[in-house]
Amino acid sequence: MAKGLKNTLKSVGKAPGSLIYIGEITTPVTDVSISITEYDQHTIKSYQAKTVEECVTCKFSNFNSWINVDGVHNVEIIKTLGEQFGLHQLTLEDILNTEIRPKMEVFESYVLIIVKMLRYNTTTKEVEAEQVSLVLGDNYVLSFQENRDGDVFDGIRLRIANPHGRHRKSGPDYLLYSLLDAVVDHYFVVLERIGEKLEDLEEEITGSPSQDVLKSLYALKQELIFMRRSVWPLREIISSLDREESILIKKEIRKYIRDIYDHTIQVIDTTESFRDSTGSLLDLYLSSVSNRTNDVMKVLTMISTIFMPLTFIAGVYGMNFDNMPELKWRYGYFIILGLMAISIIIMLLWFRRKKWL
Amino acid sequence: MAKGLKNTLKSVGKAPGSLIYIGEITTPVTDVSISITEYDQHTIKSYQAKTVEECVTCKFSNFNSWINVDGVHNVEIIKTLGEQFGLHQLTLEDILNTEIRPKMEVFESYVLIIVKMLRYNTTTKEVEAEQVSLVLGDNYVLSFQENRDGDVFDGIRLRIANPHGRHRKSGPDYLLYSLLDAVVDHYFVVLERIGEKLEDLEEEITGSPSQDVLKSLYALKQELIFMRRSVWPLREIISSLDREESILIKKEIRKYIRDIYDHTIQVIDTTESFRDSTGSLLDLYLSSVSNRTNDVMKVLTMISTIFMPLTFIAGVYGMNFDNMPELKWRYGYFIILGLMAISIIIMLLWFRRKKWL
Amino acid sequence: MAKGLKNTLKSVGKAPGSLIYIGEITTPVTDVSISITEYDQHTIKSYQAKTVEECVTCKFSNFNSWINVDGVHNVEIIKTLGEQFGLHQLTLEDILNTEIRPKMEVFESYVLIIVKMLRYNTTTKEVEAEQVSLVLGDNYVLSFQENRDGDVFDGIRLRIANPHGRHRKSGPDYLLYSLLDAVVDHYFVVLERIGEKLEDLEEEITGSPSQDVLKSLYALKQELIFMRRSVWPLREIISSLDREESILIKKEIRKYIRDIYDHTIQVIDTTESFRDSTGSLLDLYLSSVSNRTNDVMKVLTMISTIFMPLTFIAGVYGMNFDNMPELKWRYGYFIILGLMAISIIIMLLWFRRKKWL
Amino acid sequence: MAKGLKNTLKSVGKAPGSLIYIGEITTPVTDVSISITEYDQHTIKSYQAKTVEECVTCKFSNFNSWINVDGVHNVEIIKTLGEQFGLHQLTLEDILNTEIRPKMEVFESYVLIIVKMLRYNTTTKEVEAEQVSLVLGDNYVLSFQENRDGDVFDGIRLRIANPHGRHRKSGPDYLLYSLLDAVVDHYFVVLERIGEKLEDLEEEITGSPSQDVLKSLYALKQELIFMRRSVWPLREIISSLDREESILIKKEIRKYIRDIYDHTIQVIDTTESFRDSTGSLLDLYLSSVSNRTNDVMKVLTMISTIFMPLTFIAGVYGMNFDNMPELKWRYGYFIILGLMAISIIIMLLWFRRKKWL
Amino acid sequence: MAKGLKNTLKSVGKAPGSLIYIGEITTPVTDVSISITEYDQHTIKSYQAKTVEECVTCKFSNFNSWINVDGVHNVEIIKTLGEQFGLHQLTLEDILNTEIRPKMEVFESYVLIIVKMLRYNTTTKEVEAEQVSLVLGDNYVLSFQENRDGDVFDGIRLRIANPHGRHRKSGPDYLLYSLLDAVVDHYFVVLERIGEKLEDLEEEITGSPSQDVLKSLYALKQELIFMRRSVWPLREIISSLDREESILIKKEIRKYIRDIYDHTIQVIDTTESFRDSTGSLLDLYLSSVSNRTNDVMKVLTMISTIFMPLTFIAGVYGMNFDNMPELKWRYGYFIILGLMAISIIIMLLWFRRKKWL
Repeated sequence: MAKGLKNTLKSVGKAPGSLIYIGEITTPVTDVSISITEYDQHTIKSYQAKTVEECVTCKFSNFNSWINVDGVHNVEIIKTLGEQFGLHQLTLEDILNTEIRPKMEVFESYVLIIVKMLRYNTTTKEVEAEQVSLVLGDNYVLSFQENRDGDVFDGIRLRIANPHGRHRKSGPDYLLYSLLDAVVDHYFVVLERIGEKLEDLEEEITGSPSQDVLKSLYALKQELIFMRRSVWPLREIISSLDREESILIKKEIRKYIRDIYDHTIQVIDTTESFRDSTGSLLDLYLSSVSNRTNDVMKVLTMISTIFMPLTFIAGVYGMNFDNMPELKWRYGYFIILGLMAISIIIMLLWFRRKKWL
Repeated sequence: MAKGLKNTLKSVGKAPGSLIYIGEITTPVTDVSISITEYDQHTIKSYQAKTVEECVTCKFSNFNSWINVDGVHNVEIIKTLGEQFGLHQLTLEDILNTEIRPKMEVFESYVLIIVKMLRYNTTTKEVEAEQVSLVLGDNYVLSFQENRDGDVFDGIRLRIANPHGRHRKSGPDYLLYSLLDAVVDHYFVVLERIGEKLEDLEEEITGSPSQDVLKSLYALKQELIFMRRSVWPLREIISSLDREESILIKKEIRKYIRDIYDHTIQVIDTTESFRDSTGSLLDLYLSSVSNRTNDVMKVLTMISTIFMPLTFIAGVYGMNFDNMPELKWRYGYFIILGLMAISIIIMLLWFRRKKWL
Repeated sequence: MAKGLKNTLKSVGKAPGSLIYIGEITTPVTDVSISITEYDQHTIKSYQAKTVEECVTCKFSNFNSWINVDGVHNVEIIKTLGEQFGLHQLTLEDILNTEIRPKMEVFESYVLIIVKMLRYNTTTKEVEAEQVSLVLGDNYVLSFQENRDGDVFDGIRLRIANPHGRHRKSGPDYLLYSLLDAVVDHYFVVLERIGEKLEDLEEEITGSPSQDVLKSLYALKQELIFMRRSVWPLREIISSLDREESILIKKEIRKYIRDIYDHTIQVIDTTESFRDSTGSLLDLYLSSVSNRTNDVMKVLTMISTIFMPLTFIAGVYGMNFDNMPELKWRYGYFIILGLMAISIIIMLLWFRRKKWL
Repeated sequence: MAKGLKNTLKSVGKAPGSLIYIGEITTPVTDVSISITEYDQHTIKSYQAKTVEECVTCKFSNFNSWINVDGVHNVEIIKTLGEQFGLHQLTLEDILNTEIRPKMEVFESYVLIIVKMLRYNTTTKEVEAEQVSLVLGDNYVLSFQENRDGDVFDGIRLRIANPHGRHRKSGPDYLLYSLLDAVVDHYFVVLERIGEKLEDLEEEITGSPSQDVLKSLYALKQELIFMRRSVWPLREIISSLDREESILIKKEIRKYIRDIYDHTIQVIDTTESFRDSTGSLLDLYLSSVSNRTNDVMKVLTMISTIFMPLTFIAGVYGMNFDNMPELKWRYGYFIILGLMAISIIIMLLWFRRKKWL
Repeated sequence: MAKGLKNTLKSVGKAPGSLIYIGEITTPVTDVSISITEYDQHTIKSYQAKTVEECVTCKFSNFNSWINVDGVHNVEIIKTLGEQFGLHQLTLEDILNTEIRPKMEVFESYVLIIVKMLRYNTTTKEVEAEQVSLVLGDNYVLSFQENRDGDVFDGIRLRIANPHGRHRKSGPDYLLYSLLDAVVDHYFVVLERIGEKLEDLEEEITGSPSQDVLKSLYALKQELIFMRRSVWPLREIISSLDREESILIKKEIRKYIRDIYDHTIQVIDTTESFRDSTGSLLDLYLSSVSNRTNDVMKVLTMISTIFMPLTFIAGVYGMNFDNMPELKWRYGYFIILGLMAISIIIMLLWFRRKKWL
């Protein structure tokens, strides 16, 4: 979280609408690729744009086009694209800021949707977010991604390629829906990983938990807070996308959007259930610690209760008084040993009655 | 939960509207039975459909018909039925996905309702959910069930058979209501089982709880979270069913629908009360653990407080100094024994005053 | 709670609108009494109806009438009354079901209100609920009560008898209001009992709590959950009674209804405050247990800290080495006793500085 | 709280609108004073009314008048006033009931507002509530107070006396606003006292808390619950006063009312913050108790760990076996003493490494 | 908080609209500076006003002007300014009261917005709030600040100076937006500091926490409560600023205002996440204390369990009975030593099986 804040600070004190990239830079500025897919019912063309200026032709073609920009850390490219497609200054600022809250904004000639694509990094075992900005125009969809290592859109590429698929018969609004759907669907993958972690923790806690269990639980909670912050705004976004009276989104697409809405609710529901479960697990863990303390105490008390009186008796007959008649008795020693044995038995019976044994 | 997620993952990356069965497959694909009940005020016909195509005749007959499909894991059958009855691609996808959130969707020529039928499995002692999809058309109701072992609809079959019952005088909307009512009514059975478990736990915790009580409490909480997730959406569904301006649901049926609404609220209320109670039970358990620790500590402290001074006195007179006048006294030993007895009595009185005894 | 569920189960699997009594049967079926009060501004007649059919004359008389049925376990009587007064099948079902959630339903010719009458049973020291169903027609009020041992309506009977009272000048809507008001007013009696219990618990917990205090607190919490479930729906009911555009409730009565509304809110407020207080009391109790454990520990630690070193010193001089010069010293014994005394004093001073004493 | 309930019980079973005083009676019935202030832009008259009948002249005068009744336990006076000013039966009932929830009610010819005036009793160190009922008519304001010992309205008296003040130029609606403003402003005084208590508690808890701290915290929580119940309804009242389309409240006054609204929100905000803080303080206290238990345990464990092995060694050489070669060694005793010293040093080092020292 | 209340108390009992400065006075009354910036597309003038009267010329000039008042403790200046610019009495009261809740108020000729500017004081390591009041008129913005040591508006001064910036082309509404944006942007700086503290605490707690960690956590919680109280109202303010149908705010500015809204939501989201995290950290800390108590107990129990039986055995053979055959055995002593060693080994094995070692 704090990381995100640190990046956000870069824009503090800047004029609104200043174009600054806010996010981590891991690759050189030139390392940006733009892939264009132009299609209609009969034809399809897919290629990498060599210059940004190539993209503008899409805007005036009769094809539907999908322009996907991988890497938003090159401010120049974003700026040029923005000018070509008539994007508002604030839109460009939002696209460049990888730390903002998911949002939807309806402009006169386009709709902007910014969402978080979540991924489970199998190396760090952490959930990672990547910002995806989608711009829907009358015959194009622009998609901006933060990072270059793979995305969740491969399935969509295949489906557009299929000449009999629904994509080829539909406009860019259906493409927008597909992209959103892919993002939301991928949340389930992340949720499943978290669910597995939760089950592992559950197993450990109901078994013999180490103290690290607490840290894992804490980390899981933080991850769920993060997840929640990424997904909650989506609910609102998709809900207002459904209500929005924009001519850019055709009526038949709304059924599909309502479908994503249902999925989003399901993701939120599951996230909340998981949060509930972490709470219950913490209670379970704390109770089991209390129980173990109790058990340790019982052992201590039993040991003390048995041996303190015995040690005392032994001490008494270790005293050096001149006149201690028992010491002279022939079987004094054995009588005392017998007494001690009886005392032990009584104690054990008492412990049993108290259910400590 | 995680199980559900795993099944859901199957559809990730697929085109929306792809028809894939999402759920557990326990029986062969061919093991699907379709039972048809056609009825009007005077006649009734009940039979098993041999081919899916038989069903389509119902659509164009003058009878009301109820087509019940047991087993939705056969995608072909669902697809054929969908084509015959003009169901939307997304509807079929929803019917095939046994892990989705309960929902209602109004289409032009039909209403789709998906709910969870809950059952208490007496073998595993767990609550199980089965998805039931209901499609209401102008003269038919389609019902899709997940699993073949019995359902909660037997009573309705009998009532339709009764020539003087309300069913025979009413349309398919009354049948839809009956099916929903049967599902909601069955929730009370499940709640009662959970209530019994809760009472057992309450009894154990206020008696002498074992440590397993915590795990049972945790399991119960998880069950209530599960229950809650299944029932909450129903509230919304039935409420919007009541408001819905669909000609498929006649005005006189609305009173009945409001009746189910009241029952749903009652189920939700009880679930929430149960959740409150599990919280209180956990507090009760934790407090009783603290109390027991306290009791164990008291025993230890009393034993130590009594025997430590005594052992010390015995130790003093066990010292080997040449010049220890008391050792020579005639009644030294007995005086010391007396002192010890007095010390014990003083301790016991002190404990009593402290209310430890 | 579970008891209520068990009764509810009786109706599971029955056709909606089936008339079955749901509740406990403590008296024989014939043991039902119907009292009728007919009144207008000038005359008043009060009598016990011998047959159910007698009631129907009220419906067509010029008097206002109040028909009070004590005992709803006789299905036949309810059914006959229902037919005579034109009550809907679902209304009769609701009246017979003593376990449903408080509700209001507006029908064409009457308004149905079902509420819970709460009573504090001084024998079992528990809060008991009795269901009261009220039906308001154009010139009559039907009231159905569950149980025969007294009710909270005696005051109203007296007031109707008073020829100058407001009742005699008003219609059945004022009577309905009076009945509801009597029920809500009685909640304060129950709340006061609960408040007294809470104060007793508070006193015990801030004094020297026994372990039973926890069970009492738990029981109190359950009672408040029960109370809450009975009263919350009332808020909604009375609020919609106020908004309802029914000609059965005259405009001048609305001020009175708003008055009950205020009382209901006050009952709810108090219930919530009590719930808050039980939470605080639990915290207080748990903290006091922790504190007591702490105190017990301190005693143990002080005893051990004082006597362990002393016992060790005594042990040293109890050793049997041949060459232990101190043993030969003339005042060795007394020097050691002095050392021991000093050690005790140092310990006590240290405890004081630590504020343990 | 329970006290309030007990008073409320007096009205249970009474006809609605029965005029009974509900509250504590501390002064005789005759001990009621009525002060009247009549004013317009030019003149002002202030006097004590000798008879209730005097008040009625105000109603028909051309002056604005403020009639303040100190003491509402005299039912006769309230009744007479009510008749003179045409107050509804329910209004009188509300004025006489000092235990009701703050409320606003708009009648045809007047507006009724009932609020709680809070005061911090410096003797009992508790927050006390006094009910103030305000009735705004076309040219008068009636104010009813519960108790005679001072109020928060002295400032207003002075301001009315000022011939150039805003009061003299404004109508009774401005007076009503002033009275409400005085009540709300005084909440800040009470909040400050509570804030001071909270700071004292904070200081004690972060220092060396006694066990009484818990009871103080509990009492503070109860006070905040009480405060909250008194202030929350005010929000609603003032908000609806702002919206109310009553001709009695002129448009230019609304700005002022919105100002009180802001203050009320601020009071509520602060109350909620204080509640949050008490919760945090409890956590802090509980943690510090746990920490202290932990510290006590460490002392005990260190003492035991050091002395148990030593005592054991001394015990070994206190045994009386005939053949124990070490006992004959010349420096056996000193070797053993050296061993014991080394054992102590090792233990202390180990404690240091464990950070117990 | 209590500090704020204390200041607020100054106005209690005063007539509404009385002009009193409420806040801390750290500098002399004369120490107030007024800076004026007048600009249009072509020209810009920046200067310090020598007299208050200078400001009024701005009101009637053709330039846009920004009048910034540093220090609001000089009532005279505020009053004069208020008269010149036609501000309502209540507005002046609000500007002078540095303890009020953030608010927006729309007057006929101007809009008043009061917000909290938050700063992280690096010396005291605490979050500090300074009140900023903004008044937007048709061609001017007045800004009032509490304190003189720097503000967050330097960036805006630079941007206005830039002849090609958006400021010069826009009206005072854009300036208002810039000022608000600067304030909200600065919240991220404060949040980052808090986030760093949180991370430090997290590190300490998961490492080896000292007891001071609790106080830091408590202080952090208080800071977040403070933050929350400052920021929450802003949400409402900016949201209603967006909806407000004031001609003072042009349509093209709304997009920008919605941008601040998004930032505010993000600040609130982060604050809430931080609160969640402090809760989780407390749980983590408490659990770690429990765990450490448990560990200490285990050490004590192991020491006692090993040495108590040994000491007892030594005690037995330290008894002085005449007839104790073992004492005469040649290897009695060594046999006993062997027994003791075996007993130690058994204990250690048992501890290992219990996973205490």
